[in-house]
Amino acid sequence: MQIVFLGTGGSWPSPDRNVSALAVKRGKEIILFDCGEGTQRQLMISSVSFMQIKRIFITHYHGDHFLGLPGLIQSMSLNNRDSPLEVYGPEGTIKTVQTILEQGYFESKYAIKLHDVYPGDELNFEDDGYSIRVAEANHSIPALAYSLEEHQRPGKFNKPKALELGIPEGRLFSQLQQGKEVEHDGKTFTPDMVLGPPRKGIKLVYSGDTGPSNIIQELAKGADVLIHEATADTTLEQKANEYGHSTAKQAAEIARDAEVKMLILTHISPRYDSSDIVLADAKTVFDNVVVADDFSEYKIGYSEE
Amino acid sequence: MQIVFLGTGGSWPSPDRNVSALAVKRGKEIILFDCGEGTQRQLMISSVSFMQIKRIFITHYHGDHFLGLPGLIQSMSLNNRDSPLEVYGPEGTIKTVQTILEQGYFESKYAIKLHDVYPGDELNFEDDGYSIRVAEANHSIPALAYSLEEHQRPGKFNKPKALELGIPEGRLFSQLQQGKEVEHDGKTFTPDMVLGPPRKGIKLVYSGDTGPSNIIQELAKGADVLIHEATADTTLEQKANEYGHSTAKQAAEIARDAEVKMLILTHISPRYDSSDIVLADAKTVFDNVVVADDFSEYKIGYSEE
Repeated sequence: MQIVFLGTGGSWPSPDRNVSALAVKRGKEIILFDCGEGTQRQLMISSVSFMQIKRIFITHYHGDHFLGLPGLIQSMSLNNRDSPLEVYGPEGTIKTVQTILEQGYFESKYAIKLHDVYPGDELNFEDDGYSIRVAEANHSIPALAYSLEEHQRPGKFNKPKALELGIPEGRLFSQLQQGKEVEHDGKTFTPDMVLGPPRKGIKLVYSGDTGPSNIIQELAKGADVLIHEATADTTLEQKANEYGHSTAKQAAEIARDAEVKMLILTHISPRYDSSDIVLADAKTVFDNVVVADDFSEYKIGYSEE
Repeated sequence: MQIVFLGTGGSWPSPDRNVSALAVKRGKEIILFDCGEGTQRQLMISSVSFMQIKRIFITHYHGDHFLGLPGLIQSMSLNNRDSPLEVYGPEGTIKTVQTILEQGYFESKYAIKLHDVYPGDELNFEDDGYSIRVAEANHSIPALAYSLEEHQRPGKFNKPKALELGIPEGRLFSQLQQGKEVEHDGKTFTPDMVLGPPRKGIKLVYSGDTGPSNIIQELAKGADVLIHEATADTTLEQKANEYGHSTAKQAAEIARDAEVKMLILTHISPRYDSSDIVLADAKTVFDNVVVADDFSEYKIGYSEE
C-alpha cells in the first residue's frame, strides 16, 4: 500500500502546503481521503493518476476538505472517464455534492454515486479486499474519521525458493507477488509455490480534523499507520482544542495509547514555516512519527518483502 | 497598472499552468478577472495580496473559470476581512455564487455583494476612476468579455523640474506621482507643480473564453492591452472554434484589426508542453504579442514615466 500526501496544510493553503487530500494506492485502485481545493492539480503533479480514483471519502464539509471535488469530477469527465466514481461522506454528502455539481454548466460522462455514511458504519468492499470503518471525530461540525482495513494481503515472497525454481528476478517476481500465475522456460509457476500463507492486511486510520478523541484512539487500535491531524503545537493547545483541532503532542498520545506502528502528522497550520516545532512536540511522547509534506510518499507493509 | 497572470491554462490545470485567473493591480486595489480552482493559492504565491481584491469579474460558468470562488471568499473571511467584496458575472451569478457559498459550513465575516451583468452594461466606478464595459463573448455557453477603462491617469512626471525645486528623489517622488501633496524642508509641493496634464487612462480588454468575435474586436478598439484566449494553434482551428475557442492566429487577427498596442495570450490548452507553437502562430499576423505564463507580470502604461 502506498500513501501519497496531496495537501498537508490546515484551514487555507500556503505556498508550501495545499489544503487536505490524501491518496492511498492499492494495486491499480486509488482511494482518496478528502479533496480540498486544488487537489486535481496536486494529483497531476504527483506520481498517482487522478483517473484511477475509484472511491473518495470526505471527512467533513469545511471548505479545505471538499472544495476540490467539483473540479476533480469535471476534469475526469473532460478526460473521458467512463467508470463510476463513488463519493462517501457524513450526512448531507448526497445533497451537498449534488448541489455543487449542478452549479455552472457541467454534465458528467460517467456515473457519480454519492453516499451519506454514519459513525459505526462498516463498508465492506469485498471485491477489492478491504473495508472502511467509520467513526465520529471530535470537531466543531459533524466530522468523520475512517479506518481502511485490508482483509488480507499476499504471503511473504520466498526469494531463495523462487531463484531455486529457476524463475528470473524482475517482472515475473512482481507478478507472483501480486498473486498471478506466470510462465517461464515452458514451465508454469503458481503464487503458492513461492508465497507464504496470506498475512493480516494493512490497517490505516485517517483522523480528518479532530480534537483529541477516545473514539479515534479506539478506531486506531493496533493500526499499521495512523494519519492524524496536528494543526498546532502544545503552546497553542487551548486554541487548537477550542476549534476542534489537536496538537502534535495530543496526536502522539493517541498513537501511543492506540499502539499504532507509525504516526504521520498532517493538517499543519499555515503559521509554521518549518515542521520542526510540530515534529519535536510529537516526539516528546511517540518516536515513530513523521510530519508529511505535500507529495510525501510512504510505502506501508512492504518492509519485509 | 500591473497585470499578474495567476492561471493561464485551458479547461483543466496542468503541472505548469493553473486554470484561469488574472489580477489587475491599480494602486492599492486589485481587480480579479475569473477565479478558477486554486486561484487563492496562486495569489498567495504571487506578488499580489489576496486580501486587497475589491472586485471580481467572472466571464462564464465553466468550472475552470469560477470554482476557485468559494475557497478564496472563505479564506478572506478566515483572515478577518471586513471590507465588502463585489462579484460580477453573467446572468445567474447571484444564484450560482450564493448557492455555492451555502454548501458546507461557512459564514462570512464580511459582506459579499453579487451582481448579474449583461452585454452592453457599463459599470462606472467613479470613486476608483475606472469603468468596466461588458460585451458578449462567442462561447459554447453564455459568456462575457470585459473592458477596463481608466477615466484618466496622472500627467507625466517632470523629474528635472522636481529636482530643480529641491525635492529629493525617492518616496516623495512616488507620492507626487500618485497625486499627493508632500512637504520637504518646510515647503509644500503640490502634484500640479511637477506633473503634466492628466493623460488618457489605460484600456485593458479581457476576452474570457471565446471564438473569434467582431464584438470583442469592437470592444478592444485601440486598447493598450488585449488579453485574449488562445486555446490552440491553427492546425486545430476547426476543433477550437467548434468548442467556442480561438486559435492564437485568430486572436492576433482581432488584435491587429482592433489596432491594440499589445496582445497577451492566455488559456493555453494543456496539450502544449511549450508555448512556442502558440506564439509563432500569433506572430504570423501580429508582432507585439506574448504568451503569458503563470505568474507573468506586465506593467502597462508606465514606459514613459
